[in-house]
Amino acid sequence: MTPEVIERLRAAVGPERLFTSDLEKYSHDETEDFEFPPDVAVCPASAVETAEILKIARGYRIPITPQAGRTGLSGGALCVHRGIALSMERMNRILDIDERNLFCVAQPGVVTQTLQDEVEARGLFYPPDPSSRGSCTIGGNVAHNAGGPRALKYGVTRDWVTGLEFVTTAGDILRTGGKLMKNVAGYSLTHLLVGSEGTLAPVTEITLKLIPRPAIAKTMLAPFQDVAGAARAVTEIFKAKLTPCACEYMDRAAVAAAEARTGKKLPVQGGEAYLLVEVDGNEEALLDRDLERIADLCMKEGAPDVFLAAESEKRRFLWEFRRSIGEAVKALSAYKEEDTVVPRARLPELVQVVQQVARAHGLTAVCYGHVGDGNLHVNILKGELSEDHWRRGLDPAVRELFARTVAMGGQITGEHGVGYVQRNYMTIAYSKPHLDLMRRLKKVFDPEGILNPGKVLPDEEGR
Amino acid sequence: MTPEVIERLRAAVGPERLFTSDLEKYSHDETEDFEFPPDVAVCPASAVETAEILKIARGYRIPITPQAGRTGLSGGALCVHRGIALSMERMNRILDIDERNLFCVAQPGVVTQTLQDEVEARGLFYPPDPSSRGSCTIGGNVAHNAGGPRALKYGVTRDWVTGLEFVTTAGDILRTGGKLMKNVAGYSLTHLLVGSEGTLAPVTEITLKLIPRPAIAKTMLAPFQDVAGAARAVTEIFKAKLTPCACEYMDRAAVAAAEARTGKKLPVQGGEAYLLVEVDGNEEALLDRDLERIADLCMKEGAPDVFLAAESEKRRFLWEFRRSIGEAVKALSAYKEEDTVVPRARLPELVQVVQQVARAHGLTAVCYGHVGDGNLHVNILKGELSEDHWRRGLDPAVRELFARTVAMGGQITGEHGVGYVQRNYMTIAYSKPHLDLMRRLKKVFDPEGILNPGKVLPDEEGR
Repeated sequence: MTPEVIERLRAAVGPERLFTSDLEKYSHDETEDFEFPPDVAVCPASAVETAEILKIARGYRIPITPQAGRTGLSGGALCVHRGIALSMERMNRILDIDERNLFCVAQPGVVTQTLQDEVEARGLFYPPDPSSRGSCTIGGNVAHNAGGPRALKYGVTRDWVTGLEFVTTAGDILRTGGKLMKNVAGYSLTHLLVGSEGTLAPVTEITLKLIPRPAIAKTMLAPFQDVAGAARAVTEIFKAKLTPCACEYMDRAAVAAAEARTGKKLPVQGGEAYLLVEVDGNEEALLDRDLERIADLCMKEGAPDVFLAAESEKRRFLWEFRRSIGEAVKALSAYKEEDTVVPRARLPELVQVVQQVARAHGLTAVCYGHVGDGNLHVNILKGELSEDHWRRGLDPAVRELFARTVAMGGQITGEHGVGYVQRNYMTIAYSKPHLDLMRRLKKVFDPEGILNPGKVLPDEEGR
Repeated sequence: MTPEVIERLRAAVGPERLFTSDLEKYSHDETEDFEFPPDVAVCPASAVETAEILKIARGYRIPITPQAGRTGLSGGALCVHRGIALSMERMNRILDIDERNLFCVAQPGVVTQTLQDEVEARGLFYPPDPSSRGSCTIGGNVAHNAGGPRALKYGVTRDWVTGLEFVTTAGDILRTGGKLMKNVAGYSLTHLLVGSEGTLAPVTEITLKLIPRPAIAKTMLAPFQDVAGAARAVTEIFKAKLTPCACEYMDRAAVAAAEARTGKKLPVQGGEAYLLVEVDGNEEALLDRDLERIADLCMKEGAPDVFLAAESEKRRFLWEFRRSIGEAVKALSAYKEEDTVVPRARLPELVQVVQQVARAHGLTAVCYGHVGDGNLHVNILKGELSEDHWRRGLDPAVRELFARTVAMGGQITGEHGVGYVQRNYMTIAYSKPHLDLMRRLKKVFDPEGILNPGKVLPDEEGR
């Protein structure tokens, strides 16, 4: 990158918001141990500045990678072709919490939990709750269409986004949607941009639907002697037409890793598999009744006991424990995290397939995730394996796992995104004409291919 | 269209499913009195046949217009450039109601109410309920992203579609999504295709999310002395964090038209404006309490009395009455129906704007619609006006109404779609770069411009 480009970028955002050294922060997200330093990081404070930056990048054909919380697990924010890191960290204001219309408007750099706390203080609710919500941002959530435990009842980020302001590489600042519950005026760029991982257009403002906050939530933990029992319990819960707001799964290895790392024990022990189930609503008696029915179903399917967490302190402990698993498992060894998803009823089969595939390739897999919506996080661990075995064994194992997941009517990623690490598996998920259609869509927004290159779409040759 | 093309189409679908005469049925939807006969109507029975038809159409550059229930109100199914009517009426099977995973899979020609009845018989629920649900189809609902009264609580069609099978003009049969609650593998063509009004790719199979059916619904009717009172009541209902599943508005003229046409009277009389509010759930006591609070709020805002319809017969009467309004109003005179939408709290202002604009242009407007979600159906009536006044007055009035709607943060269509009749108003809703982006998206799917031409996008010159 020439000094001329740097000068033009500096003129666009001002000297305090452009960085050419100490770029470590902008070099990684939370995906494995990848480090890809950009040539320069710029932090626009407005859509107008973002447009300026994009025009410069386009003029010089420089790769530009949007970033915000950098908590992603698929490498979506990595500057794999160097160039410009477009960090939205300074665009971190909540612009409007509209209590009459039940919407809020935020800049992309707002931390998800900050937004949730603000709306909850007003008796309102923004449900999507990725585990990283304390540090991830709304912009990143929109880019990846983030999920989380409550997606089971409330849906994913896309279900809550009704409007966006975005910037094209030509420098146009456009708005799609708004504070509208219904809107069918033309193609919904809103819904296309959500989940496009910063490869189509950087988003500079986000309008989100809100609902009244449920007054009460109650949580239950149940241990099972085998995965099949836990899976049967989940099926029975939904067959009984109960609608928990979260239904999480942790296997024994995941629990052991979190116990070792946090030094804290789950209040029930001895399970091969655990279910963490939460109900929410406004009527205590109703929730108690539902939770009791859920507990009965769990015990019928083999849980020797259940632990009910009605108090908020116990609930908080269980959820903190659940959220600690990701880091705990990854601290065990070098790893590769997958984010498989299947129709809910096929989850027990997927759990078996994971273990079969891991064994067949001489690998170890630890599983946890959102069993209620069929989304299983699979951590394949290097453990004691030789570098050589790890390197040669991993890719064929992942391919086999994904092929079998897709054959079950599933997909290769439920909520983490394709990003950098899954893109060459997209040929398992989609046919060539389908991928070509996606490539042509990308070109509509980004004819020069400067926006977050090396993400989402596989190398042209495919496999 | 040459005999050769007809022969090739006949070979694709068989002689019983191709029609070159008696095309009246394929010439119209329910938009004003438009009639655009196609040259030929073909009724494929499978995605493979649909692909054959598309390849033929593309080879000969023949316009092809997808149709199903032909109940649309924006002319989306009109063959305005003649060519082929692609009627999905024979693809009318429910393929799967999956009670374990809570999804169903249907062909596009399934009538919406048929699908709802089938899933409700199993204790499940597909909420979107356009007023035409007795004759519209799931395919048309997907094409237009249909709404309805219950969208207020449950969202619109797009919120329930998790997977599609679609056919490209190149003849590829592709699948996007599936029975998945979470899926972030690449750009979501599912969400882009919903609402694209058959201009991007005909859909041949649809996967829909289901939920447990709410056991009980209760309905209330309240008359108000003025529109402002009704609007204040709506604001108060949402401020009190009550979540009705429907909140409908009817003005006096709309009620009078429906009473005259059906010969039936509303059980409360004398209002300038009426609210029809419904709550649903599983706990009778809770619903009674909520409905009582809603009734109190309505009376506080000026309703002299309210009518509670707890029994299903009374409820059915109120909803049949509500659904009869559309036809009743249109039977009064030549008309032009608009489908404005604004943020909920601005609806009172929109109602005033409608009457101001109508008066200023010497026109009459009758309003009804989904006040809870800001979606107001505006019927501008010709009445006693001269043909000349009507012809010259209408377009400027509509332009003014739309410009003021958009200035309020609204849009030109909430649930009816752009289709044929609104497309030249799209320049009010979007800037040129935005429309150009939509045009380029269209070209990705349909490079030759054969798919439902003359819809959604305005004439290139714009205004």
